[in-house]
Parts: sequence; C-alpha cells; structure tokens
Amino acid sequence: MSLARRDILMGAAALATASSSRAVGQDRRVGFAIVGLGGYGLGVIIPQFANCRHSRLTALVSGDPAKARTVAARYGVPERSIYSYETFDRIRDNPDVDVVYVVLPNAMHAEYVVRAAKARKHVLCEKPMAVSAAECETMIAACKAAGRKLMIGYRCHFEPFNLEAMRLARSGAAGRSRYVVSEHGFVQHDPSKWRLKTALSGGGSLMDMGIYSLQAARYMSGEEPVAVTARASTDRSDPRFHEVEDMMQWTLDFPSGAIGQCMSMYSAAQNHILLMGDKGRIELEPATRYDGNHMWIGKDGREQEIVAPPPGPGKTMFAGQLDHMAQCVLTGSEPIVSGEEGLRDMRIIDAIYRSAREGRTVGL
Amino acid sequence: MSLARRDILMGAAALATASSSRAVGQDRRVGFAIVGLGGYGLGVIIPQFANCRHSRLTALVSGDPAKARTVAARYGVPERSIYSYETFDRIRDNPDVDVVYVVLPNAMHAEYVVRAAKARKHVLCEKPMAVSAAECETMIAACKAAGRKLMIGYRCHFEPFNLEAMRLARSGAAGRSRYVVSEHGFVQHDPSKWRLKTALSGGGSLMDMGIYSLQAARYMSGEEPVAVTARASTDRSDPRFHEVEDMMQWTLDFPSGAIGQCMSMYSAAQNHILLMGDKGRIELEPATRYDGNHMWIGKDGREQEIVAPPPGPGKTMFAGQLDHMAQCVLTGSEPIVSGEEGLRDMRIIDAIYRSAREGRTVGL
Repeated sequence: MSLARRDILMGAAALATASSSRAVGQDRRVGFAIVGLGGYGLGVIIPQFANCRHSRLTALVSGDPAKARTVAARYGVPERSIYSYETFDRIRDNPDVDVVYVVLPNAMHAEYVVRAAKARKHVLCEKPMAVSAAECETMIAACKAAGRKLMIGYRCHFEPFNLEAMRLARSGAAGRSRYVVSEHGFVQHDPSKWRLKTALSGGGSLMDMGIYSLQAARYMSGEEPVAVTARASTDRSDPRFHEVEDMMQWTLDFPSGAIGQCMSMYSAAQNHILLMGDKGRIELEPATRYDGNHMWIGKDGREQEIVAPPPGPGKTMFAGQLDHMAQCVLTGSEPIVSGEEGLRDMRIIDAIYRSAREGRTVGL
Repeated sequence: MSLARRDILMGAAALATASSSRAVGQDRRVGFAIVGLGGYGLGVIIPQFANCRHSRLTALVSGDPAKARTVAARYGVPERSIYSYETFDRIRDNPDVDVVYVVLPNAMHAEYVVRAAKARKHVLCEKPMAVSAAECETMIAACKAAGRKLMIGYRCHFEPFNLEAMRLARSGAAGRSRYVVSEHGFVQHDPSKWRLKTALSGGGSLMDMGIYSLQAARYMSGEEPVAVTARASTDRSDPRFHEVEDMMQWTLDFPSGAIGQCMSMYSAAQNHILLMGDKGRIELEPATRYDGNHMWIGKDGREQEIVAPPPGPGKTMFAGQLDHMAQCVLTGSEPIVSGEEGLRDMRIIDAIYRSAREGRTVGL
C-alpha cells in the first residue's frame, strides 16, 4: 500500500508511526515518479534525490523507452516502474510511488496532474501550473476529490537568498515597500524549443521566465495585486517568435500603494529582483539562478552584501523542495506553495495577456 | 552692445572676430544672468562659472534684494546688474548680459523665457522646460521671433559617464536595444518644498526626477517613443502628497520594438539606467548624480566597470553646459539640447499624465 493511500485511513499522526514501522528492510523515504525526462527533469531534478533526506526516485514516465531504461538503470529504478504516457495510469497500482512530479511542457500539466490524482497519487507540478486559470481550477478540484496534496515547483521558496530576502522584507528592513522590480530574461537561441510552440508552452517568455518575475513581485511585496497593466513587444519576423511573445512588461498595483514592475524576455539577459522601501532596499542579482546568486541590503546610503544567508531547508533548493513535498505527504500538512498559489499566478498571467492585448489596465 | 544683439548684425563667423576684438580691457566671455537664487541656481550653478572658459556671471535676478546683494558682492557682479522680478525686463538694456539662465520653479519658466526673449537675450532654461507642451511651443516661438537661442539645462548631455553610455549604445556595444530601464527617485522629506505645490511645480516626482528617467530612456535607446502606458501611485493622506504625485511608472514603446521602462518617485531612493541589448548591456548606477556615478558594460556574461570615460566637454558637466551655450551664442550654432528637445519631453510628460489618469495606453 502506498503512503498516498494510507494517509486517508490513518491521518497525519498515525502516518508518522506507520512510516517508521515501514522502515524495516526498506527505504523510509517517500517515493517519487518523475514524469518527463527533458532537460529539467533529467538534468536538474533526478540527480537531486541524492541530496534528499525524505525523498527517493522510484519511477519514471517517458515517451522514450530506451532513454527511460538507461536512466532507470543509472538511478536504480526497477524496470517495472517505467511507464509510457499510454501506460501512465497503471501507476495507481505501484506502491513505491507516493508522489507524481510532473515535469512536462506547460500545456500537458493539467492532463497529467488530473490523471495522477485519479491514480490516487500526490502531485508536485512544475511552474507555471498550467496554461490558464481554468485548467488550474480543474487540477485543484481533481486533487481535492482524490484527497491528495498538490504542490507547485516554485523552487525559489527553498533558495537561501530568496528566503532571506523575504524574511528581511517582512521584517521591515527596507521600511514600507514602495516599488518592487523583478526582471527575468535570457537570449533564447534555438527556434525549435518546445517553449516557442504555443500548443506546448501556452505562451512565450511570460510562461517561462515571467513566472519568476511575477512570483518575486508577490513574495517580495507580501501583497496580492489588484490591477495589472501590461505591454508586449515581439518581432514576428524573427523565426523564434512566430507563435509566442518575446518581451512582456507589466506593472502590478498593490493594495498598499506599492507598485510592482515586472519583465520577462527572450532577447536579452537579465536576472534581477529589487525591493525599494522608504527606508532602504533589498536587491538580488543574479536573483534566481540555480547557484551563484548575490544579495545586498541598503540603508542610509550604504549597501552591504549578504554573503552567507541562513541555510535553506535542504542541502540544495531542489532537495529542499522535494523533501518539503515528502514531509507534507508524511505529516498531512499543506505545501507552502500549493495549487492555490499556482492558480493565483495563473489568474494574473491571464490578466497580463488580456491587458497587453487590449492596451488598458485590467482589474484583478 | 550685447553679443545677443550683435550676432544678428554680423553672423557667426564675423562674431568670433568681434568677440576677440572685444577682449581689449575686458573679459571675452559670454555674460550670463542667473534668474532665481534657490538651491540649484545659487548652490550649484553660480559657483561653476569659475570652471568655465567661455562663460561669466554678469547679472542676478532675485526676489530677495539682500540675498542678491550678498551674492553679487561675492561673485563680482555690479549692483547695477541686480534685478528684481519687477525690474527684470530692463535687462534688455544691459550689454553685459548675453544669456538669461532661468533657474526658477517649473511653472515660472514660460513667463521668464518669453520675457527674456523679448528683452532680446538668449535663453538657457532649466528642465523640465515648462509645465505643458503648449507652454513649450510659446517659448520656442518667442525665442524664434526674437532670433535668440533657446537651450534646456539637460546636464547629463555634458556628463562623461552618460556621454560614454550614449556613445557605446550608438556603437552597438550591447547589440540591438531591447529594454531600457531608467529609474530616479529619492525620499522627499520636507512637505514645504515648492516642488510639492502644483502651482509652482506643475506636478510631482515626474516633473522633478522623472525628466531624468524620460531623457535617459530616449538618449540610451536613440529612439522616439510612439506610445506610453503609465501608472501612478500616491498616498494622498501623506502631507507631502496632498497636491502632487509620489510615484509614476511608465512604459515607452519604441519603433524598433524596444521597450523603455521608467519610474520616478519621492518615497524611495533610486538612480539607475540600464540598456539591455541582444548582445550585452550598459549600466549606470548611480547614473545621474552630480558626482560619483558608476558605469559597467557587460558582454558574453562578463561585466567590466568603466572607471575613466573620456572627459566631457567641460571641467565639470555644469561648466560644459554653460560653455556650450556660450559657444552657441558665439558661433551661431544650435544647442544640442534645444527648446525642441524640451518640447519632445513635455509632450511625452503630458501623455504620461493622461495615460495614468485614463488607465490606458496613449499614442504619441
């Protein structure tokens, strides 16, 4: 019996005991199936189980059987726990899988989250959660109906510099928040990338780097925007941008009067978060890279670099994220970045596209 | 006879000779009257004549006779060349005055520029040029009718870091321009400042620091915007902001597809210019201070600080600006930052206010 099914029967407290008793002769870690062996799933996430304390890789889902077998052999996943997209629903019967981690192109998130929930598995889903708010609502409903956790892969909530920036912002280190800048871009060179095909990505830079800009504006301000005003700029003669937007710029009105100034782009490099308050500032640049982020706080005209923020919850942000999901499964608690959090972002993203299209401010 | 009157009679080439012949027993420099002995005129501009090669202080216009006499004595201005706002028009008869430099609150610029032109003097006017595009047009027409030069005090066009940034941007050092950030703000502490009274300032941070943001977006991109989308945010319960806006954020659409992202504010400190291109970046921070500016160029993931840009046209940017005006008077050439340049900014400023008021993009 998988942990996923057991927690309905026993509840969180009993679950911890059950989990311990299960330790005899086997790994006590929560089992994850990775759905999608692309650059992020295979290159970034899978190697991170080695850094986890509560999570282990127990299954793979891929459209490429040869690739899946190679990866399975390398990471000790048994052949019986390799699935194709056609056989995926049989994962329901695999007791080694507690969590399905969906690392597919954006437009496939909704389908695989719903199928995972129907297979009675907890779900960790990459960001952006889906390609519309309506899809997010369906995904949340499916997990709720199945009594399963739904977490979104907002890795910055497990990254030491970003965590320290949030803590400092909340503690008033910059005074009253007035202006939050959050800009993410890189030069997308390859016109064949799935991210440039609307049917797979749901949109351009906004659906890729833009989700970091939007998240940061929200977690740095600590507020929910009430209106958005957006502009897009895309050279449609560029083969990379026949379908999706290159550049999106948007402004968020926060209830306190603070303004969020966000940008995403595929034609220049930028990775920057800045909170300006009436007493000082908190700045990260680069802000959200896998490593090598830097951070400064400024007050009274002096800037100080924060070189060693308090460590995050895991050995790496990726391990911290996986283990957070595992702990939510083990204890029955809610993920700090739940499906509702993903839905909030997606509602704003829908409004950003509408505002850019209509050339006017859109209320949220 | 003042240089101002002579250049009509003789033209530029003859003027240089006339100017030389005038050297016998007197200063060969172009004479300036400073109108307004506030913080900028008295504290910043007047001491700069000591750094000039072609400009000298020859008259003062002030509403405070005692203050004017003290300043006149200190800088060697004869008592007969002190004017009040009532007696200002008599400056027409002062042969030592070639240029009237208007350093008054924004809402007084139009009146004093027009009166200076009617007194047949060349005019240097502080930025923003006026409080509306309509005023700017009147000012340009008055100077044209009088056959006099009109220059706007855009000091950054004489500042070494900004000049080098413009040169690098134009030379393609960052590749094709995609995104220009220009943010200027400081914490305005004193609610009694004239800049917080609409009747004198014509507006809040946009009319103060915003002019730097707007100018930089234009001189860094090298383009004229075709549309603007703006948001304002002001806490009207704050005694500083009963009349004028605190924060203004606006986005410029440039014809190339580049986007300009600008901000001005009175409730947090920021002084930053950044051009992102598809091949690199040019960044200034602080960007437009009187001194202590810093600049970097980035390419291929490496950033290099430019510590010694080529020197500007003057010993200081202020002296360079004064001497540029003097040389335009002496040679008959047009100022690089003319009244038309001021009008361009003011048309955009009018559109920024309209866009913020109406919550929609405004074409230019």
